[in-house]
Amino acid sequence: MAINDTKVTTAAEQWARFAPIVTGDDYLDSLRNRDVVVYLFGEQIAEPVDHPIIRPSINALKMTYDLALDEPELATAWSALIDAPVNRFLHIVGSPDDLVMKNRMQRRLGQLTGTCFQRCAGLDTISVLHSITFDIDQKHGTKYHERYLAFMRHAQRNNVIIGAGMTDPKGDRSKRPSEQHDPDLFLHVTRRVPEGIYVRGAKAHMTGGLNSHWICVMPTMNMGQDDRDYAVVGMVPGDAPGLTYIYGRQSCDTRAMEAGDIDKGNARFGGQETLVVFDDVFIPNEHVFMDGEYEFAQDMVARFTSYHRASYVCKTGLGDVMVGAAAAIADYNGAAEASHIKDKLVEMTHLNETIYSSAIASSHEAKPLASGIYMNDSMLANVCKHNVTRFPYEISRLAQDLAGGLLVTLPSEADFNNDVAGPLLEKYFKGRGNIPVEHRRRMLRLIENMTLGRNAVGYLTESLHGAGSPQAQRIQILRAMDVEKKKGYAEDLAGIADELQ
Amino acid sequence: MAINDTKVTTAAEQWARFAPIVTGDDYLDSLRNRDVVVYLFGEQIAEPVDHPIIRPSINALKMTYDLALDEPELATAWSALIDAPVNRFLHIVGSPDDLVMKNRMQRRLGQLTGTCFQRCAGLDTISVLHSITFDIDQKHGTKYHERYLAFMRHAQRNNVIIGAGMTDPKGDRSKRPSEQHDPDLFLHVTRRVPEGIYVRGAKAHMTGGLNSHWICVMPTMNMGQDDRDYAVVGMVPGDAPGLTYIYGRQSCDTRAMEAGDIDKGNARFGGQETLVVFDDVFIPNEHVFMDGEYEFAQDMVARFTSYHRASYVCKTGLGDVMVGAAAAIADYNGAAEASHIKDKLVEMTHLNETIYSSAIASSHEAKPLASGIYMNDSMLANVCKHNVTRFPYEISRLAQDLAGGLLVTLPSEADFNNDVAGPLLEKYFKGRGNIPVEHRRRMLRLIENMTLGRNAVGYLTESLHGAGSPQAQRIQILRAMDVEKKKGYAEDLAGIADELQ
Amino acid sequence: MAINDTKVTTAAEQWARFAPIVTGDDYLDSLRNRDVVVYLFGEQIAEPVDHPIIRPSINALKMTYDLALDEPELATAWSALIDAPVNRFLHIVGSPDDLVMKNRMQRRLGQLTGTCFQRCAGLDTISVLHSITFDIDQKHGTKYHERYLAFMRHAQRNNVIIGAGMTDPKGDRSKRPSEQHDPDLFLHVTRRVPEGIYVRGAKAHMTGGLNSHWICVMPTMNMGQDDRDYAVVGMVPGDAPGLTYIYGRQSCDTRAMEAGDIDKGNARFGGQETLVVFDDVFIPNEHVFMDGEYEFAQDMVARFTSYHRASYVCKTGLGDVMVGAAAAIADYNGAAEASHIKDKLVEMTHLNETIYSSAIASSHEAKPLASGIYMNDSMLANVCKHNVTRFPYEISRLAQDLAGGLLVTLPSEADFNNDVAGPLLEKYFKGRGNIPVEHRRRMLRLIENMTLGRNAVGYLTESLHGAGSPQAQRIQILRAMDVEKKKGYAEDLAGIADELQ
Amino acid sequence: MAINDTKVTTAAEQWARFAPIVTGDDYLDSLRNRDVVVYLFGEQIAEPVDHPIIRPSINALKMTYDLALDEPELATAWSALIDAPVNRFLHIVGSPDDLVMKNRMQRRLGQLTGTCFQRCAGLDTISVLHSITFDIDQKHGTKYHERYLAFMRHAQRNNVIIGAGMTDPKGDRSKRPSEQHDPDLFLHVTRRVPEGIYVRGAKAHMTGGLNSHWICVMPTMNMGQDDRDYAVVGMVPGDAPGLTYIYGRQSCDTRAMEAGDIDKGNARFGGQETLVVFDDVFIPNEHVFMDGEYEFAQDMVARFTSYHRASYVCKTGLGDVMVGAAAAIADYNGAAEASHIKDKLVEMTHLNETIYSSAIASSHEAKPLASGIYMNDSMLANVCKHNVTRFPYEISRLAQDLAGGLLVTLPSEADFNNDVAGPLLEKYFKGRGNIPVEHRRRMLRLIENMTLGRNAVGYLTESLHGAGSPQAQRIQILRAMDVEKKKGYAEDLAGIADELQ
Repeated sequence: MAINDTKVTTAAEQWARFAPIVTGDDYLDSLRNRDVVVYLFGEQIAEPVDHPIIRPSINALKMTYDLALDEPELATAWSALIDAPVNRFLHIVGSPDDLVMKNRMQRRLGQLTGTCFQRCAGLDTISVLHSITFDIDQKHGTKYHERYLAFMRHAQRNNVIIGAGMTDPKGDRSKRPSEQHDPDLFLHVTRRVPEGIYVRGAKAHMTGGLNSHWICVMPTMNMGQDDRDYAVVGMVPGDAPGLTYIYGRQSCDTRAMEAGDIDKGNARFGGQETLVVFDDVFIPNEHVFMDGEYEFAQDMVARFTSYHRASYVCKTGLGDVMVGAAAAIADYNGAAEASHIKDKLVEMTHLNETIYSSAIASSHEAKPLASGIYMNDSMLANVCKHNVTRFPYEISRLAQDLAGGLLVTLPSEADFNNDVAGPLLEKYFKGRGNIPVEHRRRMLRLIENMTLGRNAVGYLTESLHGAGSPQAQRIQILRAMDVEKKKGYAEDLAGIADELQ
Repeated sequence: MAINDTKVTTAAEQWARFAPIVTGDDYLDSLRNRDVVVYLFGEQIAEPVDHPIIRPSINALKMTYDLALDEPELATAWSALIDAPVNRFLHIVGSPDDLVMKNRMQRRLGQLTGTCFQRCAGLDTISVLHSITFDIDQKHGTKYHERYLAFMRHAQRNNVIIGAGMTDPKGDRSKRPSEQHDPDLFLHVTRRVPEGIYVRGAKAHMTGGLNSHWICVMPTMNMGQDDRDYAVVGMVPGDAPGLTYIYGRQSCDTRAMEAGDIDKGNARFGGQETLVVFDDVFIPNEHVFMDGEYEFAQDMVARFTSYHRASYVCKTGLGDVMVGAAAAIADYNGAAEASHIKDKLVEMTHLNETIYSSAIASSHEAKPLASGIYMNDSMLANVCKHNVTRFPYEISRLAQDLAGGLLVTLPSEADFNNDVAGPLLEKYFKGRGNIPVEHRRRMLRLIENMTLGRNAVGYLTESLHGAGSPQAQRIQILRAMDVEKKKGYAEDLAGIADELQ
Repeated sequence: MAINDTKVTTAAEQWARFAPIVTGDDYLDSLRNRDVVVYLFGEQIAEPVDHPIIRPSINALKMTYDLALDEPELATAWSALIDAPVNRFLHIVGSPDDLVMKNRMQRRLGQLTGTCFQRCAGLDTISVLHSITFDIDQKHGTKYHERYLAFMRHAQRNNVIIGAGMTDPKGDRSKRPSEQHDPDLFLHVTRRVPEGIYVRGAKAHMTGGLNSHWICVMPTMNMGQDDRDYAVVGMVPGDAPGLTYIYGRQSCDTRAMEAGDIDKGNARFGGQETLVVFDDVFIPNEHVFMDGEYEFAQDMVARFTSYHRASYVCKTGLGDVMVGAAAAIADYNGAAEASHIKDKLVEMTHLNETIYSSAIASSHEAKPLASGIYMNDSMLANVCKHNVTRFPYEISRLAQDLAGGLLVTLPSEADFNNDVAGPLLEKYFKGRGNIPVEHRRRMLRLIENMTLGRNAVGYLTESLHGAGSPQAQRIQILRAMDVEKKKGYAEDLAGIADELQ
Repeated sequence: MAINDTKVTTAAEQWARFAPIVTGDDYLDSLRNRDVVVYLFGEQIAEPVDHPIIRPSINALKMTYDLALDEPELATAWSALIDAPVNRFLHIVGSPDDLVMKNRMQRRLGQLTGTCFQRCAGLDTISVLHSITFDIDQKHGTKYHERYLAFMRHAQRNNVIIGAGMTDPKGDRSKRPSEQHDPDLFLHVTRRVPEGIYVRGAKAHMTGGLNSHWICVMPTMNMGQDDRDYAVVGMVPGDAPGLTYIYGRQSCDTRAMEAGDIDKGNARFGGQETLVVFDDVFIPNEHVFMDGEYEFAQDMVARFTSYHRASYVCKTGLGDVMVGAAAAIADYNGAAEASHIKDKLVEMTHLNETIYSSAIASSHEAKPLASGIYMNDSMLANVCKHNVTRFPYEISRLAQDLAGGLLVTLPSEADFNNDVAGPLLEKYFKGRGNIPVEHRRRMLRLIENMTLGRNAVGYLTESLHGAGSPQAQRIQILRAMDVEKKKGYAEDLAGIADELQ
């Protein structure tokens, strides 16, 4: 494949195109009229912002701006870097409290959107780059940390969204990056020029990729000496030449294109996953934060997953919605007082709060790294995420239990609007007292949305695989569990002297 | 509302319109050109058989005919009633073995269709009517059993599908049928004429209603003296005047209307749930099997649920597909040999076979009723169904685990067909060895279909609510557990003499 | 170690010492005055039958005789071999029904004894020997099957107990029998003389070993060509010269030696596990059923575990006692009507019946082997046992929940008998109404006995490890699950043609 | 019953008998030669400190003194009250960090003792009294808080152990304290004299009662106006006239009286539960902290359970021992490298750390009360404790799984010491390599001790019932879950406007 003739641009030129974003509407504007190549259902999309399937995912991110205005104590923080308040998604975590506040904001956004708001991976990337660039510089005398701080000053001032481009397609799992039959199966540097580097490859499952102003490419796993060209970290504008986005399908995605807002379940908010292809995309030196220091890839991934596995606390916000939806539908059905109903709501809450506790415990127990930034407790972050791979499924099952069978037999909104079918449906789906049939329908569609539909992707499957599949957490727990120390406790109590062993 | 002026028709007239069905194609023909009123997405459907959303549900039922030809030892049985082989779905169960064979056929059809094939409730209705009509006649000197046998002879000779119209809308759950503000919230007799009766009301969540030749209306719960008009059982042709079908939505239902067959996941088969409205539908006396004998409603429901809760063994057939799909995708991903992958496949199988064992145990332990028919063990049937409300969710979670995140980020079929996006997707989603990317896509879409999409309705939510929600089984287990006898065992071992109590 | 100079004895001589046993008391007599070497708490026990720790284990076996008289339809069967009724524990299973009746008897004995009655492994050994001796003869032209039938005629006529000596100590798990540093770590033939063979080694965890009239030694795992001397099956009288029994401890075992019967929890019944050492024990040729045909060891173990894993249905009898005890103590505490109490009793029952269903399903699905005997379904037997490794623990936890904290804080029987402490305890442990404090105490002690005490060994730990630890069942399920066939179902539904693979 | 003629004593006289305790040995001395009435196995015990069953429970408490010397940063804190360092068990929690440090100390002591060290309820009592006495004074103008602070100064200076006497026998659960047939079934004031009050009744399940220097009596549940005499809080010296202790049995308790230390499993440490009877015990006014202010009983219990349910983090220390013991025995058995073994150790750790995370999250999230003391988050404390009622049982099951069947078939220590049996046991229980058989025995006995034996009481049953049975937590979660707010989230996303409802 011929080398893409992408023009060299400077960091200054790249930033020149941005203006400070204040409101959610500013954010919407910032995404309009960008020159991005996006494919969805086999067609190139002219203006993603106005596409009915894409817009709900943008709305979810917009909420991160709106919340900063509505609840600034929660969603903003004072940045020492620019000596001004910044959106908490751009804040460099300087204390355990910063991490706890991050968790609270994540839960709140989950409550407000009922979906994945797509901005956590970027936040956790910012955090990990602070310490990793510092550590590389310490060893290699490079200037990455300074570059990083400069970038962050721009980012904070312009209030931009940074997406994390982490997961390479990986090809044959049994082979290393440099051993793949197609070198592009992991993103890598294809050319180095005085002004910067060119990268090529793709990032899969990129959450909110299309909705970000910048994409940070970074390694997806540990690297060896032969993988040097794959050990690259850099910032790419979301509309950089050479980028192609291909939109991922989600369950019930096309409902967003139907008339009416009831059957959508959650008409306003949705998630987004894209494949982003990098066809020799240029990155100016100022935006390169790692280039060849392969030995830091493992630490980078480990620290990122530690931050990011606790970020799955966001699912407790969705869990709150599930508890509320289950309680509401039970109430509409006239079953709210049954002891088994209350018991199931308690169980849902218990599981949800268990997840929450592990996340904030992990944050409260954060320790400083050499660069001065704080990192949450890795064991507890893994424990949190591991429970996230289990409990939302049970919470979802219990919500479906309380919903009743109508959850999956309810006719369409169009039928309710039909002159013949509509009145019949109104007549026969009347429940208790003065609860409008429309309330039952809306609540059932919300539960469908979160357990089977579009946002089930965010609440269930992403809970399983995001930030690493269950086995990834188990491996991490195995590494961190210090079994030798625990054997010591047991041997001491059992009266087994060490010298005998 | 004015009384519908439906013409009186005799049973003979009703049967005259049928011709014996032999092949699956005969079945398709039998559904064509019927005068049925069906609403779907706000429109009346002219020919349901050819509607892309409806057809997969018909295909699933068609498979019950095809299997009878392909594996007659499994899917047919010798009927003493007409002294000829009949489709097992029309066979009157004369032994425990008949029930076990039913279970095997159900599992097989689950394997073949990966969805709900909609014919079990009808089969279990036939079974329960045999004993209930007999018992009513014994007490009241009525002739229901003879009518029933006459109907069954016709049904077997014509090889028709009988659907079960059981679940009334119920309105305010705290009130009995006769106490509802709208008398139609439970189906009831509105008029009695010398030739028969008229019924009015609706049946909700009717599985495969539109695909049946006959609908058996019957009580959904126990009835009191004031509910006499609600204690009615009768057979109604699927195209009877006065019937209106309103089609229930399912997750991802509109994918059936998209081009291509990959994104459908399971392009051929689907389930069907409808609301069926009865607007003074006439039933000739020969097809009335209960009219006012309210005291038998409870037994009828109890026996039906006993049969039907074991019929949920069909989900083990879907479970087999899930295990196979999970194993296949792990294999395509190159992960089949990892110990944790194999362990998860074992767990899925263990749970699936646990369900199977409870169902066939229940059938093997069947005992004869007064009418000579056999009924399976009620405790074990409830135990089977109760596990069905739990294990498929865990099997589904494990299948999603093995599938990987691509399950919910994979772009659409149209993107794969696009000239630009297609080659990029082929390049970057290449996995191990010579496995075509299309195989991965197809298998992922099948898992999506069964865990989030259209057939997740059948595999998950219907497993929860069909034949009674979880609490219904718990109530039945509580009733049947004979706790006093068990207290006796404990007191005997503890040395507590009865006389002291 | 010098070869033991055990005298050669003929089979006839060995049988000459037996008299037909009819009643439970006959059984007690049959165990008295035997010349057995037994160690318990560091002392050789003169008469085990009268030892307070050993006697409850004998009582449990005695119940298998008493039940044959009390409920002959359950606990006896007609033997074609001697054309007379025999105890079902000695019956050769000739049909699926025989296996189901075995399961029912096992559950019943669990209800009656609340412990392990130690006779199932012997019964399952009898069953497996029928087919294995037949199969060896078919291949090698040996006469083992005839010998086996002759032995069984004696066994049935004399109504003896046969114990299974299966588990070798195994030493270093990574080495085969013939590779161990000490050849005795697996039992093996040390000498062959014209009249028979001498065996040496030990059998561990031998359930009810001391209470058996005969011990059948047999291989514990598959064998290779070099392990020929270890591939031996033979019958040894329980009092054979060269045998030494060393009694295994159990939780709370010494309570059996305390005064009073309340704190024992279950004063009458207990289990027994012994290490049995074989110091060149002689077996006459007539009682040798395998000698060197190593290639049959694997099948023998597989068939034995198939039978035996379903025999763990006995735990549902103990489960019945647990449900009863939990219900009784809740009743004594005045909490029986609380919804969460009833819900927990339902859950306990649901889990217990799930186990039961898998066992009897396995038996109902039995198929004949070449020798004419029936073998239960192996997959379902493994599923049954695998649930046994889980559910009793949860049932036990729920029983402790219902018992309340007094379960583990109740003072001793001696304190209740003390002049000062006794009246205080009576005063302060008075519960509701007219329930005597002694009833609460007895029921609490029974629950303690089964969840923490002596019979917790049988209800919990043996449920985990007997007939193979959990992983053994998982390996068996993995082997039997036929994943390729299931992949085929999935590929068919996904539209993946075989030829493409 | 005649009024006990207990002499009136002043607070000063009561304190005069104490001398400051520094070392663990000082603590042992402080318990000797006290005039306490203790019944155990029907006999009055002259010197509990030297009784082999009681001593291990004293050793566990002794460890709280030793740890203060060995790891002062963990087990001591600076007390503003006396301006000196104090044992953390006597420290008034002045910050979230104090609560987190408490949790860390509790886990550490669990690791060191493998049992219940009996001092947490007292610590949590101290904490709750700080705020409750303050609140009562605010409302009633009483002087309880001042008295409390004075008491605490003495307590800190003398470094004493305070036990919590909370659980009344309760009699008929359906009746309030003042309605019981026997007024003593709840502890109450029987007489008031100018110098103080007399109390009568009993406290059940009193953990470490006999090992405490002071017992704080307090209400066990909310009280009404008629229960005024039952609304009493006061401090009683452990050797006060009128007290009678009756020792509770535990599984395998008498092993402590056997020779040798192996079969004890954990020879040094054990728990203690006693019934403490108060026969008109005098409390001087200075030590009365509530007398009749019944409306504060509910808050007192609620705050106590909030503190105390997080204190169950101690079980993670025992969980560490379980993980270590399971890993060690797997290693001794030569199975440590099997993937399923490692996977089970990971699962045990995951569950254990989940508990830990909820406890410390609860503490980190502590908020100040009016008196200035901090109280941990109640929801998360309940979530912590609720997981404690489940996970230790599963951890215990997994430990038994890894232990193998020998766990419950191993012969006694005396048999190993016997001249004949001993060498046979050594020969046949030899495992891999150079691991002494004694190591296997010791580790198996430790696992037996913690899962079936004496410390299973502390690890399992107390985990279920201590600080409230499972249902108590569910009720608390139900109260605190704010379901209306969550319904609001769902209704907002579903597009349901509030005004319609």
